[in-house]
Amino acid sequence: MSFFTKFPDIAYEGASSNNNFAFKQYNPSEIIAGKTMKEHLRFAVAYWHTFTEDGSDPFGSGTMQRPWDHLSGMDQAKARVEAAFELFEKLDAPYFCFHDIDIAPEGDNLHETFKNLDTIVAMIKDYMKTSDTKLLWNTANMFTHPRFMHGAATSNEVDIYAHAAAKVKKGLEIGKELGAENYVFWGGREGYESLLNTDMKFELDNLARFYEMAISYKKDIESDAQFLIEPKPKEPTKHQYDFDAATSYSFLQNYGLDKDFKLNIEANHATLAGHTFEHELRTARIHGMLGSVDANQGDLLLGWDTDEFPSDLYSAVLSMYEILENGGLGKGGLNFDAKVRRSSYQLEDLLHAHITGMDTFATGLKVAAQLREDDFFKNILNERYKSFSSDIGKKIVHGQTDFYELEQYALNNAPIEHQSGRLELIKAKINQYLLNIN
Amino acid sequence: MSFFTKFPDIAYEGASSNNNFAFKQYNPSEIIAGKTMKEHLRFAVAYWHTFTEDGSDPFGSGTMQRPWDHLSGMDQAKARVEAAFELFEKLDAPYFCFHDIDIAPEGDNLHETFKNLDTIVAMIKDYMKTSDTKLLWNTANMFTHPRFMHGAATSNEVDIYAHAAAKVKKGLEIGKELGAENYVFWGGREGYESLLNTDMKFELDNLARFYEMAISYKKDIESDAQFLIEPKPKEPTKHQYDFDAATSYSFLQNYGLDKDFKLNIEANHATLAGHTFEHELRTARIHGMLGSVDANQGDLLLGWDTDEFPSDLYSAVLSMYEILENGGLGKGGLNFDAKVRRSSYQLEDLLHAHITGMDTFATGLKVAAQLREDDFFKNILNERYKSFSSDIGKKIVHGQTDFYELEQYALNNAPIEHQSGRLELIKAKINQYLLNIN
Amino acid sequence: MSFFTKFPDIAYEGASSNNNFAFKQYNPSEIIAGKTMKEHLRFAVAYWHTFTEDGSDPFGSGTMQRPWDHLSGMDQAKARVEAAFELFEKLDAPYFCFHDIDIAPEGDNLHETFKNLDTIVAMIKDYMKTSDTKLLWNTANMFTHPRFMHGAATSNEVDIYAHAAAKVKKGLEIGKELGAENYVFWGGREGYESLLNTDMKFELDNLARFYEMAISYKKDIESDAQFLIEPKPKEPTKHQYDFDAATSYSFLQNYGLDKDFKLNIEANHATLAGHTFEHELRTARIHGMLGSVDANQGDLLLGWDTDEFPSDLYSAVLSMYEILENGGLGKGGLNFDAKVRRSSYQLEDLLHAHITGMDTFATGLKVAAQLREDDFFKNILNERYKSFSSDIGKKIVHGQTDFYELEQYALNNAPIEHQSGRLELIKAKINQYLLNIN
Amino acid sequence: MSFFTKFPDIAYEGASSNNNFAFKQYNPSEIIAGKTMKEHLRFAVAYWHTFTEDGSDPFGSGTMQRPWDHLSGMDQAKARVEAAFELFEKLDAPYFCFHDIDIAPEGDNLHETFKNLDTIVAMIKDYMKTSDTKLLWNTANMFTHPRFMHGAATSNEVDIYAHAAAKVKKGLEIGKELGAENYVFWGGREGYESLLNTDMKFELDNLARFYEMAISYKKDIESDAQFLIEPKPKEPTKHQYDFDAATSYSFLQNYGLDKDFKLNIEANHATLAGHTFEHELRTARIHGMLGSVDANQGDLLLGWDTDEFPSDLYSAVLSMYEILENGGLGKGGLNFDAKVRRSSYQLEDLLHAHITGMDTFATGLKVAAQLREDDFFKNILNERYKSFSSDIGKKIVHGQTDFYELEQYALNNAPIEHQSGRLELIKAKINQYLLNIN
Repeated sequence: MSFFTKFPDIAYEGASSNNNFAFKQYNPSEIIAGKTMKEHLRFAVAYWHTFTEDGSDPFGSGTMQRPWDHLSGMDQAKARVEAAFELFEKLDAPYFCFHDIDIAPEGDNLHETFKNLDTIVAMIKDYMKTSDTKLLWNTANMFTHPRFMHGAATSNEVDIYAHAAAKVKKGLEIGKELGAENYVFWGGREGYESLLNTDMKFELDNLARFYEMAISYKKDIESDAQFLIEPKPKEPTKHQYDFDAATSYSFLQNYGLDKDFKLNIEANHATLAGHTFEHELRTARIHGMLGSVDANQGDLLLGWDTDEFPSDLYSAVLSMYEILENGGLGKGGLNFDAKVRRSSYQLEDLLHAHITGMDTFATGLKVAAQLREDDFFKNILNERYKSFSSDIGKKIVHGQTDFYELEQYALNNAPIEHQSGRLELIKAKINQYLLNIN
Repeated sequence: MSFFTKFPDIAYEGASSNNNFAFKQYNPSEIIAGKTMKEHLRFAVAYWHTFTEDGSDPFGSGTMQRPWDHLSGMDQAKARVEAAFELFEKLDAPYFCFHDIDIAPEGDNLHETFKNLDTIVAMIKDYMKTSDTKLLWNTANMFTHPRFMHGAATSNEVDIYAHAAAKVKKGLEIGKELGAENYVFWGGREGYESLLNTDMKFELDNLARFYEMAISYKKDIESDAQFLIEPKPKEPTKHQYDFDAATSYSFLQNYGLDKDFKLNIEANHATLAGHTFEHELRTARIHGMLGSVDANQGDLLLGWDTDEFPSDLYSAVLSMYEILENGGLGKGGLNFDAKVRRSSYQLEDLLHAHITGMDTFATGLKVAAQLREDDFFKNILNERYKSFSSDIGKKIVHGQTDFYELEQYALNNAPIEHQSGRLELIKAKINQYLLNIN
Repeated sequence: MSFFTKFPDIAYEGASSNNNFAFKQYNPSEIIAGKTMKEHLRFAVAYWHTFTEDGSDPFGSGTMQRPWDHLSGMDQAKARVEAAFELFEKLDAPYFCFHDIDIAPEGDNLHETFKNLDTIVAMIKDYMKTSDTKLLWNTANMFTHPRFMHGAATSNEVDIYAHAAAKVKKGLEIGKELGAENYVFWGGREGYESLLNTDMKFELDNLARFYEMAISYKKDIESDAQFLIEPKPKEPTKHQYDFDAATSYSFLQNYGLDKDFKLNIEANHATLAGHTFEHELRTARIHGMLGSVDANQGDLLLGWDTDEFPSDLYSAVLSMYEILENGGLGKGGLNFDAKVRRSSYQLEDLLHAHITGMDTFATGLKVAAQLREDDFFKNILNERYKSFSSDIGKKIVHGQTDFYELEQYALNNAPIEHQSGRLELIKAKINQYLLNIN
Repeated sequence: MSFFTKFPDIAYEGASSNNNFAFKQYNPSEIIAGKTMKEHLRFAVAYWHTFTEDGSDPFGSGTMQRPWDHLSGMDQAKARVEAAFELFEKLDAPYFCFHDIDIAPEGDNLHETFKNLDTIVAMIKDYMKTSDTKLLWNTANMFTHPRFMHGAATSNEVDIYAHAAAKVKKGLEIGKELGAENYVFWGGREGYESLLNTDMKFELDNLARFYEMAISYKKDIESDAQFLIEPKPKEPTKHQYDFDAATSYSFLQNYGLDKDFKLNIEANHATLAGHTFEHELRTARIHGMLGSVDANQGDLLLGWDTDEFPSDLYSAVLSMYEILENGGLGKGGLNFDAKVRRSSYQLEDLLHAHITGMDTFATGLKVAAQLREDDFFKNILNERYKSFSSDIGKKIVHGQTDFYELEQYALNNAPIEHQSGRLELIKAKINQYLLNIN
């Protein structure tokens, strides 16, 4: 059985003949900055958006038309696995990611849920033997079920806390079984709806204890998955405890957990927090916390998570630049945590959307690599901060001066000469890089 | 005396030799869509941002270094005129725009202010005889002076209302004298700081009466300037009466003024109102109200008017598309209502910035023209709305049906077939247009 | 069978004994400003939030625990009617509101859907015979079903347009049958997801044609329901055509529909559009368009519709002030378009929430009435605008002057004297009104 | 000479007789929660907003009418001191705060600037001998002068860095001289305008070095001022490094500075960062970092710092609750970092505004104290988190369990029972507290 038979016609030739455009213009084996593009672009398909979700939104029910719609329960779960590996192959996708309940339905109790998971995990493992697609990360969904209405590891109910622990324990086991390179913690309900009934300190303390137990169990099972925390400022809660990269880092520092975690930075979560994507990547990078990326995009005029497939070339250039500066993402990757629009309900839209994302980031990589090759930003910074490379500047950087000396320097200083920041010129040049990359 | 002697070196050769980029890549005489680019791109230099303002912001005083800084009063005003025409020529700028107080300082009373204006207007008129740069529009500044703290044409003080009337009367005379193609009303203080002390209806009625008097006076002096209202949602007031294109249009309709005005749409004002630039252009266009454009850009993560020079190619493509669909801007133009960053304080930054804006819109024009030549959007729409071109659809469009017939149709209808909206595909294709334009 | 047996204990005595608070402090028969509070406060229970919705959000499934959860289909629909009238009585609610699919499930086709509606409408009509609760308004849900993914009366598919027409036709018939005082149009999907594939003018024209057919049919069936349009700026679409009061009014003016519609103003929609609730009420009021109110509240730090029960006393005071200035809401009312928080999942939360809303608006009414009795705002405005009540000011207001006269007046004017706006003082006084109302 | 002679008439009797309201209803010597209200409410007058600023905004020049307007330079500075102590006395203000350039004009060079400061500081010291008003904190303005266009302690220019060091050194000396209880660092330009030309890590490192030198110098001069960092997310820069409480704490932790600093939390900065005021206070409090408060309020529908005088009673209640939970503010206070509206330009508006703020916080204190006396929030939390006080819950809290045990517990757990969050009820009760406090 094949779900995606007609894809190539529609996406490639079809698009091409009607519109004079060939998609998936990027060539995975092309060499950029010393590595193949595929080595740079560790793309992952997000199982939930692509195979599980149905296109519903707060004002409407599902629209997606999928070949597995007529099935239910474990039959549906199995059909999705089959479809998934077919799509992975068509997309030449190096990675995929999932939450536990994306791949297998919850049972009537935790025993059954785990049993369902075991069945599907075995099936996935079997498929992975002959597939080139690997597991970038898995996680436990601790936000959809009503039991998590008050949080999971920050719930006020001990039974929920224990339930969450059991799910993460299982998630770590599944990750190890399938060779996941990372394990992600996105605290969908870890936050508050109102401070009026919330003991914030108690909840944060509990969250830290939860993480400590997770670290301990990871060691026990000799998993080498990288732990990742995924910042998001709000939605579904009013305030998510992992508001942004700085807040998450602060939490990890505060509880001595910063050596055991890195961050999974998402573009749409960045903008919801009032930051650019590149800001969040930079913040994570300079603290040694950049672990992986959720490659999507939001709509800056809308106040919720739209999780669009990335198509903005500016954002792709600047994010790939941060990633290159980071020396790549290591065990991390570029997960398309993105959903086709509710009105892009047909199967071929899934292919268009992933190709859009891949082409966008491939272009971003090319431009970013060219900027680095030309020392474009490096030259700007060297010129800009040059006064700190000699004399009193050097002493400041090396911690060899004090307010007495600086005051004397300032009192005797000649009129201060500035440099222009030249932002208009820099933006024009980046446009030229973009327009000249092909 | 020459203010901008060293510009060409720095902006062209300098940029070129250091960075392998030539600026002002667009060729004004290139033919696009049947017209020269210069005919399409009626760029205007904004006198205030370029010659008058000093780079101050709410937390800091001026930073700009200008050759006329050491002068004051009328001497400074005259030096600015001289510099302005020199820059217009270097930029090959077809148009400029100004507020009254940009070009001449206020005197101790209105008589003196008008006298100062007369002197500078005569000087400008003289310069225009030998210049290729024309006046796109002028306006009266009715927001800077403390007298306008409660508004101008919506002030609660009749003396202010009369003062504003005198200024607009003078502005219309100046516009006629200098051959301005438009006259702009931007109601900087026409709005409210709080509803708690505001009679909104009274103020709107007064504003309409003000406009009626302006129309009447325009006829009296046989001016053929197009009147333009410039929407902005907030800042400096909490609520500006001309919130956005729809609100402004509603006001004009309500008072029977819609035949006498068009709209001047600004990109940054659009986004402050929660709209895209192209949305505001579209709204104005479909109501026959698109008159002119303030070509700048904002920062969607900041809540105030940043008035950046336009560099975003996506926005330039989509705005130029709306303009081409409008059959051009008629008497309107593309005014760079944009300021160099506070840290781009040097004279050459002015040149870089304008060239950035020009190159950006020139690229936008090229891509938009190509999209039109290929019927890119037209084909999408024709396919998408085709069900309204025959049978019951046609009857709907021609107003030949009713709820009885539609109900019968619906009751007997076969299962409804949709089309995918294909937004991911469309965005990918627009990226390809952009990357392939050069 | 009784669903709400234990309510009084929990909400009244329980709350009272534990916490020294009695709820529902407001007395419906108390006389305020010449009318009973019940005559002023035409509260309506929103059927969807209270009886149909389940507490799901974009990241989680339903949490609500309701006595009708074990039922389905028409049995569930009937149980909800029974529960509804029980709650209406307990709350002493004068009105309720519903969408078609709130009260009866959709069938396999439109015939069945209408049949289901007929059954439940008959049941409701029967209950209404012995109930004091009347129907404030009804409407058709044209946004939840996937068929409306591209809109309803603005869909690109003629079949959907016809389907929507049939639903509104049925809705008008139901409203007449049940004596609804209004019929509401909230265009949940009437807008666009992207301008890239949208013919905005065509869609708006189609929407106007749809409304014309609705007006025509209303006349045919001799319904006297007031038609209401409900503005909302975004969500679920990126841009809703009825963005705010001004935009909706502009649309109605443009198509000559403004005499046939009024506006239903919602607090949370106001703030999503960047306006205060009182701004939207004022805008509607001064154009004679204030028809009814959706009394809820949003969270200004969140970018989506939270639809909270109203508890903010400031907002209640200022909105009730606008309503009193409007001479009341006429056929309109105060519909609690509000949902209990997802974590307030128990039956008694429904009672607490409605009482919270009622007490809040009752306090708002009392304070607003006192402000009017004291001519608090009237005195402020009279003093503030007094310069327009004589001499040149009077001539302006009566359209008896022109720019020539105003210029002469301005040129000869003595130094202008302002008044302070006194906003700090006004706010302090409003606080005193609030604190002294009980 | 007396500047404020007519204040009492206007603010007290005048207000009273015309409007039946007496202002400054709060009684400083009233005992609340074991302390006088004055001991609780350590109000400070902000010198800059009250005596130095002129009401200008980005679109308009100054409007304020002050008795010292006709003076300039040091004469003006001295008149302001005289006026300040007169107002402090009339307001019975326990504290004031200032930046260096608020009190004395900058000279032609740093020597002169320091000399000017010395003169005014001596004068202030003299006034303080007979005044009851003390210095809550002082600081150095390192954002207004154009020299700080690229930052101060994060500038790319070493000369600016040294200049900033000299200013802070002087500021610490002045603070010691005048007995300041705190020294504030608000990094007005410590951030970036664009990442494109910014070395964020280098700038943060430099900032930390700067703080280390400040700590060292503070010790040298045996100052016991508490160091405070004031978070703000943006404005004037696009991204301020001290974005919010969590980010600032993260920075301090990262550089080992968290024992030497506390935070100065401002209401308007909180909301600009997407947080409630009480969230920022809570975040600071639970990390032991709550040092002082800038008591103002913003407009949540506007995207810039409006710095309004606080009048919102809800915010005052919740912030005072956090402060009481913190055991008070220690050396910190409630600084009215607030400006009268641009249209409240008269001298008496200054008095109205401060009284509005004082009355608002006094009411907030009373309600918060009552809520604490009744264990209102404590009871909610105790009930809500009770499952963690015994058995497995207790083991979690004490770190005595692990994923193995929790998984077993979860697998054997009975169906989970939740509690409702009761937010609607809680909000209604808080309204009752507010309405019954007088």
